[in-house]
Parts: sequence; structure tokens; C-alpha cells
Amino acid sequence: MYELGVVYRNIRRADADVAARLAPLGSATVHEAMGRVGLLKPYMRPIYAGAQVAGTAVTVLLQPGDNWMLHVVAEQIRPGDIVVAAVTAECTDGYFGDLLATSFMARGALALVIDAGVRDVKTLHEMGFPVWSKAISSKGTVKATLGSVNIPVVCAGALVHPGDVIVADDDGVVCVPAAMAAKTLQAASARQANEGDKRAKLAAGVLGLDMYNMREPLAKAGLRYIDD
Amino acid sequence: MYELGVVYRNIRRADADVAARLAPLGSATVHEAMGRVGLLKPYMRPIYAGAQVAGTAVTVLLQPGDNWMLHVVAEQIRPGDIVVAAVTAECTDGYFGDLLATSFMARGALALVIDAGVRDVKTLHEMGFPVWSKAISSKGTVKATLGSVNIPVVCAGALVHPGDVIVADDDGVVCVPAAMAAKTLQAASARQANEGDKRAKLAAGVLGLDMYNMREPLAKAGLRYIDD
Amino acid sequence: MYELGVVYRNIRRADADVAARLAPLGSATVHEAMGRVGLLKPYMRPIYAGAQVAGTAVTVLLQPGDNWMLHVVAEQIRPGDIVVAAVTAECTDGYFGDLLATSFMARGALALVIDAGVRDVKTLHEMGFPVWSKAISSKGTVKATLGSVNIPVVCAGALVHPGDVIVADDDGVVCVPAAMAAKTLQAASARQANEGDKRAKLAAGVLGLDMYNMREPLAKAGLRYIDD
Amino acid sequence: MYELGVVYRNIRRADADVAARLAPLGSATVHEAMGRVGLLKPYMRPIYAGAQVAGTAVTVLLQPGDNWMLHVVAEQIRPGDIVVAAVTAECTDGYFGDLLATSFMARGALALVIDAGVRDVKTLHEMGFPVWSKAISSKGTVKATLGSVNIPVVCAGALVHPGDVIVADDDGVVCVPAAMAAKTLQAASARQANEGDKRAKLAAGVLGLDMYNMREPLAKAGLRYIDD
Amino acid sequence: MYELGVVYRNIRRADADVAARLAPLGSATVHEAMGRVGLLKPYMRPIYAGAQVAGTAVTVLLQPGDNWMLHVVAEQIRPGDIVVAAVTAECTDGYFGDLLATSFMARGALALVIDAGVRDVKTLHEMGFPVWSKAISSKGTVKATLGSVNIPVVCAGALVHPGDVIVADDDGVVCVPAAMAAKTLQAASARQANEGDKRAKLAAGVLGLDMYNMREPLAKAGLRYIDD
Amino acid sequence: MYELGVVYRNIRRADADVAARLAPLGSATVHEAMGRVGLLKPYMRPIYAGAQVAGTAVTVLLQPGDNWMLHVVAEQIRPGDIVVAAVTAECTDGYFGDLLATSFMARGALALVIDAGVRDVKTLHEMGFPVWSKAISSKGTVKATLGSVNIPVVCAGALVHPGDVIVADDDGVVCVPAAMAAKTLQAASARQANEGDKRAKLAAGVLGLDMYNMREPLAKAGLRYIDD
Repeated sequence: MYELGVVYRNIRRADADVAARLAPLGSATVHEAMGRVGLLKPYMRPIYAGAQVAGTAVTVLLQPGDNWMLHVVAEQIRPGDIVVAAVTAECTDGYFGDLLATSFMARGALALVIDAGVRDVKTLHEMGFPVWSKAISSKGTVKATLGSVNIPVVCAGALVHPGDVIVADDDGVVCVPAAMAAKTLQAASARQANEGDKRAKLAAGVLGLDMYNMREPLAKAGLRYIDD
Repeated sequence: MYELGVVYRNIRRADADVAARLAPLGSATVHEAMGRVGLLKPYMRPIYAGAQVAGTAVTVLLQPGDNWMLHVVAEQIRPGDIVVAAVTAECTDGYFGDLLATSFMARGALALVIDAGVRDVKTLHEMGFPVWSKAISSKGTVKATLGSVNIPVVCAGALVHPGDVIVADDDGVVCVPAAMAAKTLQAASARQANEGDKRAKLAAGVLGLDMYNMREPLAKAGLRYIDD
Repeated sequence: MYELGVVYRNIRRADADVAARLAPLGSATVHEAMGRVGLLKPYMRPIYAGAQVAGTAVTVLLQPGDNWMLHVVAEQIRPGDIVVAAVTAECTDGYFGDLLATSFMARGALALVIDAGVRDVKTLHEMGFPVWSKAISSKGTVKATLGSVNIPVVCAGALVHPGDVIVADDDGVVCVPAAMAAKTLQAASARQANEGDKRAKLAAGVLGLDMYNMREPLAKAGLRYIDD
Repeated sequence: MYELGVVYRNIRRADADVAARLAPLGSATVHEAMGRVGLLKPYMRPIYAGAQVAGTAVTVLLQPGDNWMLHVVAEQIRPGDIVVAAVTAECTDGYFGDLLATSFMARGALALVIDAGVRDVKTLHEMGFPVWSKAISSKGTVKATLGSVNIPVVCAGALVHPGDVIVADDDGVVCVPAAMAAKTLQAASARQANEGDKRAKLAAGVLGLDMYNMREPLAKAGLRYIDD
Repeated sequence: MYELGVVYRNIRRADADVAARLAPLGSATVHEAMGRVGLLKPYMRPIYAGAQVAGTAVTVLLQPGDNWMLHVVAEQIRPGDIVVAAVTAECTDGYFGDLLATSFMARGALALVIDAGVRDVKTLHEMGFPVWSKAISSKGTVKATLGSVNIPVVCAGALVHPGDVIVADDDGVVCVPAAMAAKTLQAASARQANEGDKRAKLAAGVLGLDMYNMREPLAKAGLRYIDD
Repeated sequence: MYELGVVYRNIRRADADVAARLAPLGSATVHEAMGRVGLLKPYMRPIYAGAQVAGTAVTVLLQPGDNWMLHVVAEQIRPGDIVVAAVTAECTDGYFGDLLATSFMARGALALVIDAGVRDVKTLHEMGFPVWSKAISSKGTVKATLGSVNIPVVCAGALVHPGDVIVADDDGVVCVPAAMAAKTLQAASARQANEGDKRAKLAAGVLGLDMYNMREPLAKAGLRYIDD
């Protein structure tokens, strides 16, 4: 359940350096490194292709059709943060545009992840401020009802605590709990180191069937080859 | 993020009596009493109309197309519990049918809330075992990959801790944190007591405009009446 | 475009008797009689099966997550009316429950058609107050922003003017413009009179192919029968 | 790919008795007996609860918004058949109502499975003619473009050949290829015989964990129990 | 309700210069300037990013799977027009491709807004003819049933009269009634003039909380800051 | 119904040259040339714009959340093939990424068409390996359950036999049965030859109404022009 009308100012952020080093690994590798958990639903899409970021989460809970709290969360942003916005009901309205993006960038935010809609997407692209959202919509919002800032929120099906690391790219968005960040970086890096070697073999024509020793378990599971 | 492959056996359940008394108040009243938070997404629908229950949550995290952990969670059920099942990805398969329902009922479960599909719905109705789900599907599942039992889960967009109170009826499903249960019961009861009086007035033709003193704030907001 | 913050009090309603006689004809027959236009989108579903009504529209435009104007529209209801509610954005919140239904019934409303969510559906069923909606949701709403009453609205893709006739049943909802109501009643009645005869023939085993003389146009269109 | 403008008159139907005996086993058991394949997508829902049928498929391919071929297929129906209707594009229009149902019943059809919309659902329920469909809609259709009858069709994601057995109930719809019908009946019957015993044990409190000997494989997969 | 089988030739278009000056303001600013109304649903998306247009609406009502009337509407296009196409039922077929686009461009059309599907999108992009649609689909259509041209239509949930101004960009599509166009241009221009100043302040680090004087109303609404 | 656990090694592929010559014609023209059939549902979208390919299908049936069989199908790929992947249930998981793409490319595959999700889409774009999919998702998969390779599959609503020709571009994906490939190439080429002429006329201002002689049938259907 959500606590309403509160702003937590002193959150504990994951290590900034760890967050930064998770970015180039990407959401798929990080998600695998965590044991295939932590993903936001795949309806969250980037408003433009190619952005790849990681940062510490400042969270905000919004009311439907009301973006008041986005102004409140702006003050809590520190350089290297990613704002994660949840809504108390399903909503596709355009909560965020180029003015708020200007403010967020001035505060040092790297990106916005919002389980609702945004607008001014052409300008946001030109500004280089990446957003992952559920919708794009010109629909404006009011400023009438309180939500909260820096409480744990559920965004697109994933639980995000303030200070967790968010990794986002063209494949989606993953949340790494602060306490797991260092360990996840290690596992994800190992995983990636491993991939270069595999890629070279596969490019040379080696089959995954052989490289991963799958032929025996497949046969054991009953796979039959038919030649007629 | 989710911890995989663990079963917590000693969870702290909300007071059983408080849970039982929340049932007749219903999900809408309870949701209002909590400040309009705690709801699962409205795509969660009962498999038959008319059931209205409240109980303490035992939670289970499932893998896509795999219902192995439903057998694991069965052992953790105590009388008065409601099983809350989340999946690590979007899935509509039929994870649960009459055999598992027989087992759950034998353990004292009151209901299942599952962010996926179920089957044997005609038999479940005859057995009187209510289910709130995202889908109905004959599609069967495998038993191959571990999830967890009694960890905090995100089910249909709502965070549910083991031991929280779940209130479910034809309007939807709401989660009341264990620590808030007693206070919520009080607020919801007060709210309901209040409603009988209002209902009588409205039935007698009194308008909400007058009963709630809305005419002045509406006029102040600029509402104009036009008679041509 | 919508005019906001206005309530039109003196609307011209279609003939009440004509409206009443359209009800038993049903939405499909009426829709056909109008030339296959006037339907609301099929995502509009009754909250319980079996209701079949027709009445004159009083319209209301709502803001997302805000049911203030439902109290304003209540005052404009006259016996035989059906309230048609549109929202300025996509929203599934529960705008309407048993208290508002009590008020609407006291004013003589026959039904509600709302392009959003409702709640207390079990009680609404017991009260016999039918609703056609896009969703069922416990999610509550605020009272903060003005919409309008008795302006033309687009509800679930259909344009509805105040005073139009609404015909709703298990198949869906159709809007008959006031100026077309009498003519539509005539055409729909003729159509239905015609159906008894057809039904008897079809029940006796006559094929539609013969009854409607379709064999020749089908052959002309190139239909071939293959017997191997 | 589809052959257009043809009607195959002499199809080979699966054994009628086998089909009849598959009905009480239900779609979930039959689907499991086939190795978890053959299901139509879960968006196919019955227009009323409680119907449970099995019959031999006569198939029809329809054009969007055009129900001409439903009259053509009517002539090909034999007692015990279920009509399976596919559309060449996504469409929710109401292709089928009480008149066509009267004709289908007079020909001996047991049900309709249609990847589109139907109407007159209240009357269809009263007539006891079950339909599984993607939508309910008053929207009428034209009669202008040819499709085909008794060609293989893809209906809701499943390939259906004329003469296959269709099993449909509240859980969904499954297609059993004619050549597999007898074997599937045997496997499904064995499966069900088995279930009575399991149900009794589970009702007596035996856990699936023990009945299915899952404790060892779960431990081997790494499941840990935590007692604090 | 829709009048079928008619083409209105002499519609009254909004001032062409006003339309042209609305284009650079964009759909979000124009929508705000009108009081947050007039938007088409956000499922309407451009087939390629970056186009930004405004023009006067010529409207067309299509039948499902039938693009006959697009040829009829072509003749009614004048330079500076945007064709707005609605369908009498939900449909994703590809009604429009490069040949029709060639014809529309030859007539002076600036864009197409269609509540259905289009195809040849790569070629349309190369031609520089922007389209906002609900879907992209290769599915072809027939030419068999009449709709209408230049009647009021509901397109993606918005009422559009022939001659209204359509403003479309990457954020969506908004309809400005002809009678409101001049006033809306004024309000939108004022709004935008205002934005440059705000943007500079926000870029300099001034918070919206201060620039919009939100701290007091937030405190009054009960917002609490917590520092632990 | 699907046969599980089998790999057919000796499939008969459509003529490679015919396949190659279908590519530049595109999915819309090919679909029209086949009589408007053979299309996959329009939810199948390219992961990046601009790719246009045609090749012979090797098919694979996958289990939900399990990509084991993608390694099995890799071995069956020959230069000029397109892998067509279906799943036994609805699933959006990311079955395929840059490592598998490296392997597929090394084997000579031209593209992947998958009724599920993929990941590493930025890298796939850089590699120039086109994919048409239902979703993009970082969600990983397991390797535990058998499907099949080179059996007929239903992918996004279309029946695909191994060896059929797949034509895919920005408009969608169409399947041409091997036996129809040569004839379809002829019809599609004729159709396209025809288009250059039409395009020139339309660009010169000739109306489709005149070029296609539509005025008479439109008048006959009752179209009326109104000049007031």
C-alpha cells in the first residue's frame, strides 16, 4: 500500500560508479545476471531508439491525470538519478513534456521512466533526454491531488525502491535493488566477458547445440530427427 | 527484485478476525478507507459473480508456463489464507484447476488471486472456490523452474507482502498491509455506517449537490447553467 | 471540441413513447434499421446479463479520475432518461456506485452508459439498475475539475446529442438521433415483423441460400462446389 | 494460404461416437491428453456459461464485415457438427444472430466457434445454442465477397481441418485432428480415471508435494526453506 | 448517427492562414489552449517520426474492409486539406497506400488521419506524405459499400466536422473546430511565447515549485517532508 | 495439432530464385496477388524500419518462455532461409538476441519472424539482421521443454509450411505456399508493372474515380452529391 502526501528527502542511493558501469551492459544482460527477475513489463518503450542509461532511482507516485508531484520530485533529483514514476490507476495522459525535462536535466537527471504518457517527444529527442513510457499523448494534466516522493512504488509491474539502480535501453527497463547492485555488476560483467568468445565461435559456424552441449539432453528429452 | 528458490515458513499474518470483518465491507469501501490506494489492476476479474472474501495473503512467485510452486505454496496455507500468485513475465496459461483447488480447500484457503490464467472454472464454481484471475485458459503448464513462496510480490500492479489482508469481490481486489488492517477496518466501518444515512436521503430525492454542499464550489470553479 | 463548465437545462428529448417502443426491438435490429450506423464500440458491456432498455439521453462529459459532474447531471435527469457519460481521456476508474445509482433511480433514470469504470456492481444488480461500461473497478475518483452536462459527447466512438434515444441490451448500445427516432421505430418494427416468418421457415429446414435467393449471385461471384 | 470461392462438400468427419465421448472430458483434459497442443487462443469465450460440447468441424472462411458464407456453410452442416469460422482479417462485427442459429440448429449443428463477433446473445442463450467468439457486437455485416467452406482454416491461432473434433467448454476450445481422435479419447479417459483418486487424496489433506514425489526434485533444483 | 451515401461538395473551411500558423505550435500546445479537449485517442500514431502539419479537414466515413470512398473523397480535396477517415466498425486493414497518396498529393492534401490501417509506409515516408493511423497492415480492401464524404465523423474518439483544423505531430492529433480556430491560435501563441521564458528559468535551475508558486498550495493540501 | 519433439531434416523449399524476386515486390503487392490471403496479423512489426526480405521458411514450434528449440532449428538453416517461430501459448518473452542472430547469420538465414519477443534489438540493427516480432523484451527464457522443427505452424494467425516463401517488409509479413510461389510472382509482377502507369496518371491529377471507372457503379449504388 502507498503512503500518500509524503516526500522522503534523505534516501540512500546505490553506488553511483556501480550504476554507471551497469549502463553499457544493458537491460537483458543485467536481467539475466539477477536470475531473470526485476524487469518492468515490455509495454514500457523508449520514445526514441538508441538511448542506454543507468542511474539511481528517485521515485514518485502520481494520481491519474495529475502531474503535480512531478514538480515536487524535481527538487529531490541529484546528478545521476533516474526518475521512476508510477500512477495509482491506469492512465495514458501526457504527464511530462519539454519544460519539465529542462528542469529535470538542470537537476542532473539522466532519464524518466513513467507508467503513463508523455508529450513533446520530438523536442525531448532533440534535447537528448530519454524517456521510457507506456504511451505518447498530447493530453494535459491538472495539479490538484497529492501523491508521494521517494516511497517504494510499483512501476509497470516491478517494485522499485528509492535508490535502486535502473538500467534502461532499447530492450526495456530493469530495476536492480541497491543492495544487489555490486554483485549484479560482477555477475553481469562476467556474463558479458563470456559472450565475446561465444560470439566468435558462433560466427565461425559452431552451433549452439555443440557449444552448449545440448545434443545429449535433447536426445534424453526424446527429440527425434526424421529424414524423409 | 525477487529472491528465487526460497520458501518462508514463518510469516506474520494480520489478525484473522480483522480480516474476516473486512470481507463484508467490500473492495471499494476498503480502498476508499485506505486513501484510494492498494488496488490490483481492474483486469483481475472473478471467475464467477457473487463471491466476496477477505483473508491473509500467502504469496507465491511463479515462472511463465510453470505451476510447480503452486504445489509448494499449498503446504504453507493455513485456514483463512488467500493465495496470491504473481508471475515473472506476462502469461495467460491455465496454472490452476480443480485438483489444486481441492488441495487448497483442504488446507483452509479461502480463494486464489493469480496474475495469469486458470481452468476447470465450471468445477471451481460448483466447489465454491473463488478465483480472481487475468484469464481463463485450458493451456497446461510444466513443472521445471523454481520461484519462491512468501516473499513480497507484485501482483497485477500491487505490492503484496505475505500476511497482508486481501479483500476481493465483484468490483476487484485490494491489498491491505497487515500493519494497516485494524485502522483500515475502523475507517471502512465508519465509512459504511455513514452510507446508510446518505442512501436514504438520496432515495428520497435529495441531490448529492445539496447533501455534499457542492453548489458553492461548483459555482466557484465557474460552472454555468444555460436555459435556452 | 467540447465546451467546458456548462450545464444545458432545457434540452429537447425524443418522444418518450417512441423511445419506450424501441426497447423491445433491441440494439441489433435498431442498428440495422438505421443503415448499420450509430453503434457504440463493442467494448461497452453490461455489468449483468439480461437488461434491455431504451430512453432519452442526458449527457455528461467527465474529466479523468473525477466524478464531480455525475452529481451535477443527476439534477438534470427526468423519468425515462438514460445518462450517457464520456471522459476527456481514456480511464477505467470506478466513477459510479450504489449511492449515485440510488440518486439516479430516485430521479427516474433507466440506466447509465459510461465510457469508463463503475463499482458496487453486485449491489447495482440487486437494485436492478443496469449499466453499460468499459470496465469494472473499485478505484475511487476525486471531485476537482469541471466538465459539462447536456452538450454533444463522443461516447465509445459514437456521437450522442442530449435528447437522442439510447437502446441498450446484451448485444451493445446504439444511439438513435432524436430526429430519426420515429422513422427508425417504423423501420425496425417492420424488420422485426418480417423476422417471425423467416424464423419459422429456417426452423423448418429452409436454407437462407434459398429463402434469400443467394444461389445465383453466389454462382455469379464465382463460387464453386467440389465433391471429391 | 487460403483457396477462395470453393465449397468442399464431401469431407471426412471424425467418428461421431468418439466426438460425443470427448465432450464430458472437457477442453483442459483433452488438451493435456494431446501433449498440450491444439488450443484456440484464450480470447475465445463462451457467450454464456455452462455449455460443454464436442462435435465434428465444418469450417468456413469469412471476409471482414461480410457474413455471406455463413449461409453457404449452413447447407453443409450435418447433425453433430460444430461450425468453425475464421476471418481473413481482424474483425469484431456481429456476423451471426438468432436467425442463422435457427437455421444451424435445424441442420443439426451443436455450436458455433467464430473468430469474430456475434449478436442476439440473449436469444441464443434462450435457444440453447452455444457460441464461442472473440466479441459480442450488434454491428451488422454485408453479403458481397466470397470466402470458402470446408478448407483448412486458422481460427484464433489454431489450425482446424474440416472433420476434426472440436471440444469446447467454459475453459476454452480445443481442436483434435480427426486422425488423433480415438487415441486422444483413450488418453484423456485414462487421465480422467486417474483424477478421481488424486482428488480424494488431496481432499483428505495429502499434499501434491508428496503425492507427486516433488520434494526430491525441488530440493535438487535448490529450493530452500527458511524458518525465521 | 451517420448519413450514408452522400458527398457534401461545398464545405466551409477554416481560414487557411490560421491553420498554417497552428502547425508549428504543435498538438500539445493547441490542446492546452483549447482547455484540454479535442484530442484523438493516443493509439493514433504517425507512420514516421518528425512530421508536423496543420490543415483543414475533409472527412470521409468508410465501411469495414472497404476503401471505395477514399477515391470519392480524393475529388473533394483542395490544397491545404487533411483527409480525416473514420470507419463504421473497428478495423485494422490497410485502406491506403502509395497510389492513393500520389492522388491525394496531386490534389494538394497535406496528410491523412485514419482510424484504421495503411500500407506502403516506406514509400509514403520517401514521398513525404505523413499519415496518422491506428495500424499498419498489408491487408487489402474491397470496393463494394457506400459511406459518405464531408459529414461530421467520429475519428479515434473525437468529433470532426468538415472544415475544422487538424493539428498533428509526433505527440498526436488534435481537432480545432473552425469557429474556434482564430481564438485558439491566439491562446496557443500566447502560451508558447510564455514558454521560452519559463524554459530559460528552469534551465537555470529554478524549480517549478517556485516558478509556479506551488509550495503553499502543496503544504495546504497536506504535503509533508520527512528527513530521516 | 502439433507433433512434438521432432525435427524434419529434408524439407522441400520453394525455388530460391522465385523467393528472391518476390522480395522487392513487397508484402502488400504479394498479398493482393494471392487474392488477399496469407497475411500474418498486423501486430507483427519489424524491430527496425527499412528491411525488405523474402526467403524460404524453416519453421520452429516453441514452448512458452523456453527457447531451446531455437538452437535446434539453427542447424537446419540453409542460405536464403527465414526462420518462422510459433509458440504454443501467448508469450512476450525475449527468446532471441545477438548470439543466436550471429549463429543464424553464419548459417545463412535472412531474417527471423517470431510470434513472441526478442531482445538485443540495437545490436541486431547494427548487425543488419531483421526480425519481425510481437514484442521486444529483455525477459530471458529457459531450455527445458521440447517443441518441433519443420512442422507446419500457425504463426500470428497464418499457417506456414516449411519451405513456403515468406515476404516481409515495413507493411508486415505474408506467407506464400511453395506450390503457389511461381504463379504468385507472375501475378505480383504484373500487378506492379501496372502500377507505374497508374502512378503517373494519378500524379498528373487524374482521379481514381475516372481511371478505375467508378462513377457509374457509385451512382448505381446510390451515391448522391449535395452542393449546398
